[in-house]
Amino acid sequence: MNNAGPLKNIRIVLVEPRHPGNIGAAARAMKTMGLSALHLVAPHEFPHPEADARAAGALDVLGRAQVHDNLAAALKDCVLACATSSRRRELRHETMSARAAAHELVAQAASHPVALVFGSERTGLDRELAGLCQLWAGIPANPDYASLNLAAAVQVFAYELRSALSAIETPQTPEFEPASFEQVEQLLRHAENTMVSVGFLDPANPKRLLPRLRRLIARARLEAEEVNILRGFLNAVDKLRR
Amino acid sequence: MNNAGPLKNIRIVLVEPRHPGNIGAAARAMKTMGLSALHLVAPHEFPHPEADARAAGALDVLGRAQVHDNLAAALKDCVLACATSSRRRELRHETMSARAAAHELVAQAASHPVALVFGSERTGLDRELAGLCQLWAGIPANPDYASLNLAAAVQVFAYELRSALSAIETPQTPEFEPASFEQVEQLLRHAENTMVSVGFLDPANPKRLLPRLRRLIARARLEAEEVNILRGFLNAVDKLRR
Repeated sequence: MNNAGPLKNIRIVLVEPRHPGNIGAAARAMKTMGLSALHLVAPHEFPHPEADARAAGALDVLGRAQVHDNLAAALKDCVLACATSSRRRELRHETMSARAAAHELVAQAASHPVALVFGSERTGLDRELAGLCQLWAGIPANPDYASLNLAAAVQVFAYELRSALSAIETPQTPEFEPASFEQVEQLLRHAENTMVSVGFLDPANPKRLLPRLRRLIARARLEAEEVNILRGFLNAVDKLRR
Repeated sequence: MNNAGPLKNIRIVLVEPRHPGNIGAAARAMKTMGLSALHLVAPHEFPHPEADARAAGALDVLGRAQVHDNLAAALKDCVLACATSSRRRELRHETMSARAAAHELVAQAASHPVALVFGSERTGLDRELAGLCQLWAGIPANPDYASLNLAAAVQVFAYELRSALSAIETPQTPEFEPASFEQVEQLLRHAENTMVSVGFLDPANPKRLLPRLRRLIARARLEAEEVNILRGFLNAVDKLRR
């Protein structure tokens, strides 16, 4: 299953990034989530060895990054742009969560290019730049320290974009054979007999032991092979008694 | 409303982090999401100026980081530990999503300490270390390049923890006391000894028996009382041998 189509239509736009390391780390964050379109607006230093170093295996994303003079140029063919911030701003746009924004972007990206815009490390996006966007989204954060690193914010948003994409997932086939009802019941009877024979369980006064054992076993959701292992151990104990 | 209680009970454990910069960046990622308990297992270089630089406003988290010799020590009083990976592993534990794991961790952290464990940058967590955890979680990622930076992975998980927190209405008081890491490890050692003594387990040729047992126990999420019951049974078996 490859449902990556919409991700190709989603560009990450970094406005005036100051630290080249953050550009590289953002490229890496993007690629881990299947994003590839990086746009830079007036970066302070780019290209730069520190960007390459932090990009790690995402040098391809970095190498194809497009550089623009201003944000409007970077958004030119987009039908939807979402400004990001970790800070509360006055009114202007209603801030939505990263998760909600990701769903809107992915839905629109099925057919058209869209953009997710990040401001500079120090100042974020100013009102004028934010005004070029139609959505405004924030990452829910610690009100006492909401200062996510730029690449870390890209990572969280990219993660939400990928998660929104895979909202339709194929159910995974279980790797292991679950134990049948009958196998589990046989195990419980076997355990009871062995516990009685070793003197751990008094049949005249069982208290809550068996219900508790049953509850534990139910919660474990045993596999067939595990039933065999446990019964093998009980058999070994039974042999001692003979 | 301040519902941050559970976050105080969630520790981030970094196992053998190689780059001090990543430790600092992880501390920053934690603080942005309201996490504060950082535990380091055998870090290559710590403390280190690069860690301080990347921590930015989270020097307090970095300064209170606890350093351990091994993972077991870092998990000692935790009732639930979740191993993280971006790679698919064979067997052992079913991998759940970061989101699902965050919900389980936050629910448990309402009353007890829990841990989220990250392996080293190059190698991740090996089987043995992963086996000390009861949950295994991964960040859904690009199958062609799933290599998230360590601090970026911490950021995504921390973000999911905070998101899970806000989904919780009232903290539920657990009906039963969960077993601690140490209690479970003692049970596993006890079971191993008894299995050897009754001739069920050949120490010279253990095959996959112990890892399978560990996996079963991890999935069952034992309560303290259940550990007592199981060890009571093992004691009764031990007596037969004397």
